[in-house]
Amino acid sequence: MPLIKLHIHKDSRTTEEVGTLLDTVHAVMLAAFGVPERDRYQILFEHDATHFVAQDTELGFVRSDSFVMIEVVSRPRSREQKIDFYRRLASRLKGDCGVDPADLMISIVENNDEDWSFGDGVAQFVAGSL
Amino acid sequence: MPLIKLHIHKDSRTTEEVGTLLDTVHAVMLAAFGVPERDRYQILFEHDATHFVAQDTELGFVRSDSFVMIEVVSRPRSREQKIDFYRRLASRLKGDCGVDPADLMISIVENNDEDWSFGDGVAQFVAGSL
Amino acid sequence: MPLIKLHIHKDSRTTEEVGTLLDTVHAVMLAAFGVPERDRYQILFEHDATHFVAQDTELGFVRSDSFVMIEVVSRPRSREQKIDFYRRLASRLKGDCGVDPADLMISIVENNDEDWSFGDGVAQFVAGSL
Repeated sequence: MPLIKLHIHKDSRTTEEVGTLLDTVHAVMLAAFGVPERDRYQILFEHDATHFVAQDTELGFVRSDSFVMIEVVSRPRSREQKIDFYRRLASRLKGDCGVDPADLMISIVENNDEDWSFGDGVAQFVAGSL
Repeated sequence: MPLIKLHIHKDSRTTEEVGTLLDTVHAVMLAAFGVPERDRYQILFEHDATHFVAQDTELGFVRSDSFVMIEVVSRPRSREQKIDFYRRLASRLKGDCGVDPADLMISIVENNDEDWSFGDGVAQFVAGSL
Repeated sequence: MPLIKLHIHKDSRTTEEVGTLLDTVHAVMLAAFGVPERDRYQILFEHDATHFVAQDTELGFVRSDSFVMIEVVSRPRSREQKIDFYRRLASRLKGDCGVDPADLMISIVENNDEDWSFGDGVAQFVAGSL
């Protein structure tokens, strides 16, 4: 269920690299949140540099053209799960996609059981099918 | 006030079909949430298949190129209103737009009165004009 | 930290005007929320008119091609801060960007400390580095 939106710079990755990026983020999400394997909903946006600004909150991160911003909408996860998700993401994105950990930003927004319908016009978490 | 973002596959619909899709979603929202008729704020995004992944959470939904993902940001709505919204959406999108109910996913995020300004730099729900 | 997404009509502004718009929104955010100056995360989307609908909730606003919709994701801000943000935005966007206050809509969604990682896979607000 998490709905994951990724934002990258236009033409910063090949189609194959985009696929690897999405696969990697999904694998990390599975490991951190323990949801069903086919609970995969991802949208990737490419932006012109003039339309996409990411500084560093004065933390010293130097952002490159490979910067990845990840937005997650999810039912509640514990603080520990989120911290684990961030740590794993940084590690796996570096290992599998060559993304410098300084080029990774993540933001999560939470909602609840009744806020999801995956198909058929049914709220599956409420109806008991999930 | 709900802000509604729709995600579809690139070139999956004509401009006329996009218009019908947006009209239908708006009509359903009015019926389910009972807001003013001109409380209409919609953005539709088209995505390349390589940039848009929607599986099925192992619920058995077979997604086609006509898949529609709908994100809603709204002040709080009751569980019953949301369930009604999903049910009506599936029915009307099938009837008016030919969207298979298996091709419909919805996610809602809530905020509050002070989180909206519709114009003039005023928070209308707080100021009492709504 | 606020993540700010802006939506405008396609080709409604030059690249320079887009830059001024983003700079102005950032300056207002700094003034209203009192965050670090380099706490700047902005994405601007351009939409075809067929894909972007913004009516007026029957408040009488006449929207033009210069309409700007602003989405903000932020840790909690007080009602007073939000009202101040809206008021300043309307004023500065008019003064610096020529945006009619009737052409401005804002929507805020809140999250919490553990919902942000700015780099290195660390939740900086939790880890104490922010």
